[in-house]
Amino acid sequence: MNFERFFPPLIHKALEVGPPGQWAPKPFSQNINLHAGYPHPNAIPIEDLMKAALNLSNKERDLPFQYEGSPSKKNLKILLKENSYIRGIHLDNQKMIVTAGSTQALDLTAKVLLHESDLVALESPTYMEAIEIFRNYTSNFISYPMDQKGLDVDFLAEDLAYRQKNRIQLPKLIYTVPTFHNPTGISMDLSRRTQLLKLAEEYDFLIVEDDAYGQLASKGELPPIKSFDKFDRVIYLSSMSKVIAPGLRIGWAVAPKKMVEAMSHFKKDADHAFSWAVTAYYLKHCDFSTHVQQVRSDYSKRLLFIKEALSKYMPTTIHWTEPSGGFFIWVHLPTIDTDKLLKKALAIGVSFIPGKHFFIDPCDGSEFLRLSFSYADEEQISKGIMFIASLLEV
Amino acid sequence: MNFERFFPPLIHKALEVGPPGQWAPKPFSQNINLHAGYPHPNAIPIEDLMKAALNLSNKERDLPFQYEGSPSKKNLKILLKENSYIRGIHLDNQKMIVTAGSTQALDLTAKVLLHESDLVALESPTYMEAIEIFRNYTSNFISYPMDQKGLDVDFLAEDLAYRQKNRIQLPKLIYTVPTFHNPTGISMDLSRRTQLLKLAEEYDFLIVEDDAYGQLASKGELPPIKSFDKFDRVIYLSSMSKVIAPGLRIGWAVAPKKMVEAMSHFKKDADHAFSWAVTAYYLKHCDFSTHVQQVRSDYSKRLLFIKEALSKYMPTTIHWTEPSGGFFIWVHLPTIDTDKLLKKALAIGVSFIPGKHFFIDPCDGSEFLRLSFSYADEEQISKGIMFIASLLEV
Repeated sequence: MNFERFFPPLIHKALEVGPPGQWAPKPFSQNINLHAGYPHPNAIPIEDLMKAALNLSNKERDLPFQYEGSPSKKNLKILLKENSYIRGIHLDNQKMIVTAGSTQALDLTAKVLLHESDLVALESPTYMEAIEIFRNYTSNFISYPMDQKGLDVDFLAEDLAYRQKNRIQLPKLIYTVPTFHNPTGISMDLSRRTQLLKLAEEYDFLIVEDDAYGQLASKGELPPIKSFDKFDRVIYLSSMSKVIAPGLRIGWAVAPKKMVEAMSHFKKDADHAFSWAVTAYYLKHCDFSTHVQQVRSDYSKRLLFIKEALSKYMPTTIHWTEPSGGFFIWVHLPTIDTDKLLKKALAIGVSFIPGKHFFIDPCDGSEFLRLSFSYADEEQISKGIMFIASLLEV
Repeated sequence: MNFERFFPPLIHKALEVGPPGQWAPKPFSQNINLHAGYPHPNAIPIEDLMKAALNLSNKERDLPFQYEGSPSKKNLKILLKENSYIRGIHLDNQKMIVTAGSTQALDLTAKVLLHESDLVALESPTYMEAIEIFRNYTSNFISYPMDQKGLDVDFLAEDLAYRQKNRIQLPKLIYTVPTFHNPTGISMDLSRRTQLLKLAEEYDFLIVEDDAYGQLASKGELPPIKSFDKFDRVIYLSSMSKVIAPGLRIGWAVAPKKMVEAMSHFKKDADHAFSWAVTAYYLKHCDFSTHVQQVRSDYSKRLLFIKEALSKYMPTTIHWTEPSGGFFIWVHLPTIDTDKLLKKALAIGVSFIPGKHFFIDPCDGSEFLRLSFSYADEEQISKGIMFIASLLEV
């Protein structure tokens, strides 16, 4: 039977793009992993999490395993709100929804906001999974360039003015990762953050602010756009994946009430009670803030290290971004097709993500690649970069 | 700002229905809970799950806390497939997707199959959360009655023939809970299961078979419709929520390959690595089959007990279904408005779910209520029924 005939036209269209996760390299088991945005194994507080789980189940018995009823589960939202305050985000007139990672929050955002005719604005380059998600709802995109200060907001302003003047469709939303951007590692500077918010108000669009790496910022550093949002323009997404553990799937959104109500309406997977309760118990009873400081300092060292390794091994024609933190660095290799380079790299033992996956038009990214410095050890990073460099000498 | 203006028309329409979970009574903390479809606290293998979590984290360290990489996490699908074989379901030409409970599987099913103009057929009554989910995608429903043998398939056949003859829209899918039906507890008999499958083939519709309680059936008992499906007509949903723990959110679907591929395309919450890995470790290293037998026998005893309590306390005008298992029994109280009755019941200390929530047209259900016998202890069940009966005497 031709099963596809049961799918509605919109689903057919979304399926044309090919399955998700195509960006993921298929490394051999012994490959040095410079592709994955995984926390370092030592950055996951395994012992504390297991202690939390044990104490929780001793104290609350079956409750964290039920749909509802666990006091710790209920507590999670309060603790995440406290966390939002640290990032300068106050919940007045806003609501929070806890989601399965910020990925689900982004999916729900796209789902409740996008009509297939809507235009979505993206940074160029942008997070590859965000492209995958938005493509399920629209195929109407516009990309705006970045420089060393993040999204080029002046360029954006000019284009918006041009569009308005010439009655060309304006974007309904812009998706941005202003803090420790994925894939470039760049952070948007403060004046651009406020300028972007003004543009949203002026041209009546929404800002989807993905702050998945924001938990790695120091207190007061790089305040989220949401922290200035007086106009209900920002849908703020964050996550514990980079600072506790991605496998617990704890993400959240802070957004205007009506937005969160709509997201809740469509969030049809019930809450992950056990995972929520373990996380809440950990946040409440373990020293999360010391843990985050430690993790932050470890990643900073690793960032310095990868920059040194790049300087040491890469030919002088190769350039890379100056990340202020996060998990990634973005490398430009003029005249090199990084998709082909990946095949060779895997064969000699190292993986990265070719740049094309971070662009709506893959041609734009063929000379770039994303390196992750979060997961591999220093020795591996060094070796991995040496391997990649060795492929460029031919 | 009027935020709703950003929502597309389809979302506006879905939001008209009111927020999900409105069916849930708001009991006082000391109320006897006869409303929730929760497993009994003793039926959750807390100690074994915690042992599994500990051994897992000793053995696999950070891996179950990462996005991917845990051998146990990877193992879950294999173990769930074995479980499907026990229910007579073979995976030839079919695929499996693991989801956050069967609720997410149902949401994905609706999402990839339904256009807003599509007609969805339901049993009357049906699972209230299924109504909530389908209403997010269409407002076009037809309900078919049930009797003591489950869905009245002859009635359905007649209506389908009539529709075809008169060129009235046929359903795209029928949603059914054939085994230990929610809310009635009734199981569809074998001949109706095969007859329904024939009708699906004849009138070109799909069957969404929710087997969430099927894990509580004995081996070979009540074979799922999916086990006869030679024509790719059945999307089979199941869950570990009733036999291990709902808070772990382990559900799955078995469906034709193209269907599962489409579901995967839209399942945008990543996998719950830790939860999957703990469940897989538990299934592999603990005695799940003995646990299920024990749980099954406990619920059977509790079913007998609630029937006795109903016989003992209820006036002779009140009747109830004859469940063959599961978590629920369905009570008919002629001339009583069970929505009003709930308010009085909560005030004297017991909760149930008013029948109206299980029907597309709430008027159909006003004289019914659902009692759960899964969660409360025998003494509480007895007391709860006595309380409800006392309200009927006035």
